Amino acid sequence: MRAHPHFQYEEVAGFISDLVENGILPPGSRVPSLRQISKQRRVGLTTALQAYRLLEDRGILEARPQSGHYVAKQRAVVLEQPAISNPPKTASTVDISGVVVKLLQYAADPALVPLGCAIPSAKLLAAGKLDRFLARAARMKGADHNTYTLPKGSLRLRQEIARRALRWGQALSAEEIVITCGCTEAVALALQTVSKPGATIAVESPTYFGLLHSLEALNLKALELPTDPTSGVDLPTLEKVLKRKSIAACLLSSSFNNPLGCTMPDAKKLAVLDVLAKHGVPLIEDDIYGDIYFGAERPKPFMALDRRGTTLYCSSFSKTIAPGYRIGWMATRRDMQFALERKLAFTLSGPALPQVAFADFLSSGGYDNHLRRLKRVFEDTIDHMLRAIDKSFPEGTRVTQPAGGFVLWLELPKSVDCHVLFDKALDNGICFAPGDVFSASGHFRNCLRLSCGHGWDGRIERGLAQLGALATAAAGASRHGRS
Amino acid sequence: MRAHPHFQYEEVAGFISDLVENGILPPGSRVPSLRQISKQRRVGLTTALQAYRLLEDRGILEARPQSGHYVAKQRAVVLEQPAISNPPKTASTVDISGVVVKLLQYAADPALVPLGCAIPSAKLLAAGKLDRFLARAARMKGADHNTYTLPKGSLRLRQEIARRALRWGQALSAEEIVITCGCTEAVALALQTVSKPGATIAVESPTYFGLLHSLEALNLKALELPTDPTSGVDLPTLEKVLKRKSIAACLLSSSFNNPLGCTMPDAKKLAVLDVLAKHGVPLIEDDIYGDIYFGAERPKPFMALDRRGTTLYCSSFSKTIAPGYRIGWMATRRDMQFALERKLAFTLSGPALPQVAFADFLSSGGYDNHLRRLKRVFEDTIDHMLRAIDKSFPEGTRVTQPAGGFVLWLELPKSVDCHVLFDKALDNGICFAPGDVFSASGHFRNCLRLSCGHGWDGRIERGLAQLGALATAAAGASRHGRS
Repeated sequence: MRAHPHFQYEEVAGFISDLVENGILPPGSRVPSLRQISKQRRVGLTTALQAYRLLEDRGILEARPQSGHYVAKQRAVVLEQPAISNPPKTASTVDISGVVVKLLQYAADPALVPLGCAIPSAKLLAAGKLDRFLARAARMKGADHNTYTLPKGSLRLRQEIARRALRWGQALSAEEIVITCGCTEAVALALQTVSKPGATIAVESPTYFGLLHSLEALNLKALELPTDPTSGVDLPTLEKVLKRKSIAACLLSSSFNNPLGCTMPDAKKLAVLDVLAKHGVPLIEDDIYGDIYFGAERPKPFMALDRRGTTLYCSSFSKTIAPGYRIGWMATRRDMQFALERKLAFTLSGPALPQVAFADFLSSGGYDNHLRRLKRVFEDTIDHMLRAIDKSFPEGTRVTQPAGGFVLWLELPKSVDCHVLFDKALDNGICFAPGDVFSASGHFRNCLRLSCGHGWDGRIERGLAQLGALATAAAGASRHGRS
Repeated sequence: MRAHPHFQYEEVAGFISDLVENGILPPGSRVPSLRQISKQRRVGLTTALQAYRLLEDRGILEARPQSGHYVAKQRAVVLEQPAISNPPKTASTVDISGVVVKLLQYAADPALVPLGCAIPSAKLLAAGKLDRFLARAARMKGADHNTYTLPKGSLRLRQEIARRALRWGQALSAEEIVITCGCTEAVALALQTVSKPGATIAVESPTYFGLLHSLEALNLKALELPTDPTSGVDLPTLEKVLKRKSIAACLLSSSFNNPLGCTMPDAKKLAVLDVLAKHGVPLIEDDIYGDIYFGAERPKPFMALDRRGTTLYCSSFSKTIAPGYRIGWMATRRDMQFALERKLAFTLSGPALPQVAFADFLSSGGYDNHLRRLKRVFEDTIDHMLRAIDKSFPEGTRVTQPAGGFVLWLELPKSVDCHVLFDKALDNGICFAPGDVFSASGHFRNCLRLSCGHGWDGRIERGLAQLGALATAAAGASRHGRS
């Protein structure tokens, strides 16, 4: 828990999570009902509910339908989580494009143990049903769709996306959505829509290198914000920054951020939106991992909470089912026309038949079934990985415990240089993502990101153990205790 | 013919085309053999061949295998071709994005007679065979390809593209090719690779509005070059411009330029490459119409003639078979790494299965069969359109007579304002592309482009006649003569 909770519900959540950490509430046990805890802690039912949702998001509690809340099955929660980051206070120009190309090339190398890129394996994604929809669309509807799509993309697909968003309270119209070539094009469009070359964008620290790469390509500067591995960017710092500096936009992940896995509680999201609106700064939201939640409920995107049209929302299906289809979208209530014009100038439109196939697939309900299965696999893989990390990585290693997504962020002892470790790992046939590519200012040289996107098997297990051994050797000390 | 031919072969071509124009060589008649003409005009055989190729490119002669050269079946060559353009001598910033969005929206409106956008109808494109390859790829190879493609795109597709290019003497390796989201992304990447915001790009005048739109999105200025409707940009002017101004790149269509339909003879292409190399200015080549040649041989792209790596080559399959698939490519021997980095930052990669389908389709030979059929349809449609234009458009109308592609460029009497005509045409359910969107400086307000991409039928015939009547009314004079 945070040392100084800002909100009453955080206090309640802290009370429960202490009971779990001390073993008073063991894994699998039932926790006090909402009614009981609200009486006990003298808070309203809503506050109690918020507290339990926060604990679900953090993977500490599980909601079971018609039965109440239980302590989640135990993870290897022996390792501490990394501390809140402490990036430089000035904006940096970005220069990481060479690294990005290299990382993607390693990711495509089947000879390496795939802990590097955050791309789930095709085997886990099991997109056969979607592929059959594509085959059918190609056979039956080819001639109907052999032209450029509308500037915004397939209307039916946009309607399906809007329909899904409604479930988590995001009231979108199909006209507020533009289909893009993955989340990458969505973010590039959003950035161009709200900023000019030379401007500064406030980002999480660490943040996904692909976002930094987009800033670089558009000649934008990055101002990295201190970010908590569970609840996201530090609100007081954000306020200070917006007051003192000229920021063109704030670019934040809403849920299970890459690489930290953090998710802001709703109340904090609302506070961020307030601050941004007060300073007239737009929010670019990257929600690409939002569908991969392990708790009972999908975290709400900023846009679902935003009543002022501050948000440009970006997402895609690349992390959940079809990186090979390259279908993403941007949703916005502001400057749609400008965004469309940029899209026309850079890619004109996306391929039509994959959009038709996706619309058919979504309306069939196939995506929901798929997500349920996939989330269980990712959660299980993360559990295994955390236990393995606990066993083989050097003393002092910290690791995140995300409640969604499929990446882990490790902070190793300061003595470890992740680039030296990276080269050694490659020599040993193992790929991971070195920490400093997640920072515009070269921070996190003792950190690394591991992908859990290939499930848990003997090869991953051996690779991870070997990586742990290499890290331990690099830390210059054999491991003590707990063996 | 040009008033002052620069080359001996142009003199020979002028001699023959005079004989055709005067009716001494009637349509369908055999012209002197290469041997005869070289004797007669006292030129080498190569010069004679160059002259005949130029006449083929202009649609005046046809080569018949094993039989020699014949005067092409007569077109309505009663109307004159437009004169060489005379754009302003200074660079302009570009501001046409609103117009582009509007034009594309009209193009998607099935209620309008489709003379507007240069998109062939799905019926003419008849991409069923390609669609079946996509269906098969989705059924059989989905799991193999459900990941991001290599940064450059499918290797097999790049190999097939390289193999085709070899036929017209363009020696490319698959590693020199990057697959893009249509020619639009290819040009955007090429521009970013060789220029920085604020720079000036030399372009044809008129030129495709999509290219101007890309310049606008990248904050580049356009310097329009005087362009001849048959042989492309004026070489002496290009030389002068390169000597006197700072030009970041020259962006030219190699064959059947949009909207003029012009193609430079090889000798002129070589001269352009020489001039550019001398001044160290790269050439961005847009060859999207190159496959749609009516003559015996495909015109050579600049890149095939370029021995110094000056050229960044852009093309796609959108005009010949599959606008709905969005598959284009850029080929370059310079700065590939930089271009790839930009691609990663803007779209990451393209969808995989459409690339697999295209590779299968190309290697099956299906594309060549398709092209043969399609070219006959376009040539025939252009013939019909030229005759109809001759009948119904006002006196003084000039029109291009392209030897490939599927657009016509009309110069109407100065008194006609194409925007007034455009609104009237829309009221009457007819769409065309007004001339000034093909210029950064608002030139060509008395011009328009017609698409011949929907074949010839009663609806097109009536629409064109009606448009002619509206233009005649706008010209403020009833039509005299030839009725």
